[in-house]
Amino acid sequence: MKDIIECVPNFSTSDQRVVEAILSEIKKTADAYLLDQTFDEYYNRLVVTFVGNKESIVQAALNSAAKAVELIDMNKHKGQHPRLGAVDVVPFIPIRNVTIVDCIEAAKKFGRSLAEQHDIPVYLYGAAAKPERSSLDWVRKGEYEALAEMIKKPERKPDFGPAMAHPTAGATIVGARKIMAGLNVNLGTSNLKITKKIAKALHAEKGGFTTVKAMGAEIPERKITQIGMSITDFEKTPLYRVFEVIRLEAERYNVSIVGSEFCGMAPLKSLIDIAAYYLKIDNLGEDRILEIAVRKAMEKGENSG
Amino acid sequence: MKDIIECVPNFSTSDQRVVEAILSEIKKTADAYLLDQTFDEYYNRLVVTFVGNKESIVQAALNSAAKAVELIDMNKHKGQHPRLGAVDVVPFIPIRNVTIVDCIEAAKKFGRSLAEQHDIPVYLYGAAAKPERSSLDWVRKGEYEALAEMIKKPERKPDFGPAMAHPTAGATIVGARKIMAGLNVNLGTSNLKITKKIAKALHAEKGGFTTVKAMGAEIPERKITQIGMSITDFEKTPLYRVFEVIRLEAERYNVSIVGSEFCGMAPLKSLIDIAAYYLKIDNLGEDRILEIAVRKAMEKGENSG
Repeated sequence: MKDIIECVPNFSTSDQRVVEAILSEIKKTADAYLLDQTFDEYYNRLVVTFVGNKESIVQAALNSAAKAVELIDMNKHKGQHPRLGAVDVVPFIPIRNVTIVDCIEAAKKFGRSLAEQHDIPVYLYGAAAKPERSSLDWVRKGEYEALAEMIKKPERKPDFGPAMAHPTAGATIVGARKIMAGLNVNLGTSNLKITKKIAKALHAEKGGFTTVKAMGAEIPERKITQIGMSITDFEKTPLYRVFEVIRLEAERYNVSIVGSEFCGMAPLKSLIDIAAYYLKIDNLGEDRILEIAVRKAMEKGENSG
Repeated sequence: MKDIIECVPNFSTSDQRVVEAILSEIKKTADAYLLDQTFDEYYNRLVVTFVGNKESIVQAALNSAAKAVELIDMNKHKGQHPRLGAVDVVPFIPIRNVTIVDCIEAAKKFGRSLAEQHDIPVYLYGAAAKPERSSLDWVRKGEYEALAEMIKKPERKPDFGPAMAHPTAGATIVGARKIMAGLNVNLGTSNLKITKKIAKALHAEKGGFTTVKAMGAEIPERKITQIGMSITDFEKTPLYRVFEVIRLEAERYNVSIVGSEFCGMAPLKSLIDIAAYYLKIDNLGEDRILEIAVRKAMEKGENSG
């Protein structure tokens, strides 16, 4: 594969049987490669990561979306993560030999086909949308429960499909964006109020870091809470800084950080920045990493014959 | 290239002209790829990293060694790092589709040819040597200055070449080993006594970490000192732990860590362990890293046609 696009669809399920069925559609698609699936009961949400070329990425996304529409009923859905539909949000991300324009094209192709095949209203967001409609929060306002009302407003006419919620799948949001990092940090408290206060301190629109979205959630089976974050520009806002501010704010409530995890894939650059910060390393770029440098040398070797 | 061996020769020079001449020999060798060169005046030592296949790795090592023998005169050499010759130590490291046995073979082939072509005594060390002669410290005892005397002892007969120091190039140590990490940590003090005390606390043979060699050195132009380390098994002894013990010991003397740097390449696993420790990340393996997972998927794609 020369051209690589990444797709990270979020589905409103954490049912093992449904998860398997969705993943299976991606595995079956030619030239599509599943990299990761992350799903949790407390969010009741599945985040899938896969890569493909310009054609296969759209095909695999459509195949998996069709299965989700078939198996998920939003009327019965509960979960702590904001969501608008069964196939909630589907971003396309440029990885290699493609631009954001190629990803916008893939997003529109996917959105148009999804709407046509299943009568689902589709909203574009991010780089694929007009500026005034680009915010995911704006599109998702009121969530699935308010969708039937919201969708009637003229300024909220979907980009593809009917101006009417799908009876079981709601609506879908499709877009193009750059690589981002998803990091969830677990706090050693069951007090959701504290966790939401800390999340607020980080959230861009509440005065936090410009490139961070943060929310508080409960993990009832472990009696702890979690700050779920997406960091859209981890080069401008490195993960260690976000983590240390969480620690700083948590100390105020005598709450400790008990663990963290990536949601989806970890971008290499975000890890380099963490290691370089804590060990004060002056000379750490991608080319300093043995495995990366060796692979680059191999590719050079293959190209020269 | 299917089979990949890494070679990390250490040369006793920091003279820019000599460095360039040595590197040029590697760049000129077919199927050999230069990854990095690190050299410092205070050590007066050049550490080169390159990769190649079973044949090209030996050829590039021989070509660069010949140039070093031609241009370096050990009679005029001073430097803080222990050394025995112009081409001081040459380890071969398995990277891909090769074993340590292949690297021992490459080491012996290189050692035998170097001895034959230049009349240089060559010692094997590490996995290539008998157990009682495997320690680099043992081989280098007394350094270049004592070589003429030491080499006459029967138990110190070289593995290849004459039992007599080369008049300008001394002796060379050749071996095979696994990937290791070289980390230098700079301390905000010019007091070498303090730095040597801290280095002792880390050094395996002085009661420190089993897989760590550490030494203290001065960086006169910056009026600071440095702890130079090699960590032969960074999975058993992760770099964050070594770094935090340095911090712990340095605090006792009110000395701060002012920076650190990798000497040679940084193994990916060593960085993952650093990031996972400080951010308490539970799910961070190589396959979680986007760039690594994408390249693996690409290779799968190429193999399946």
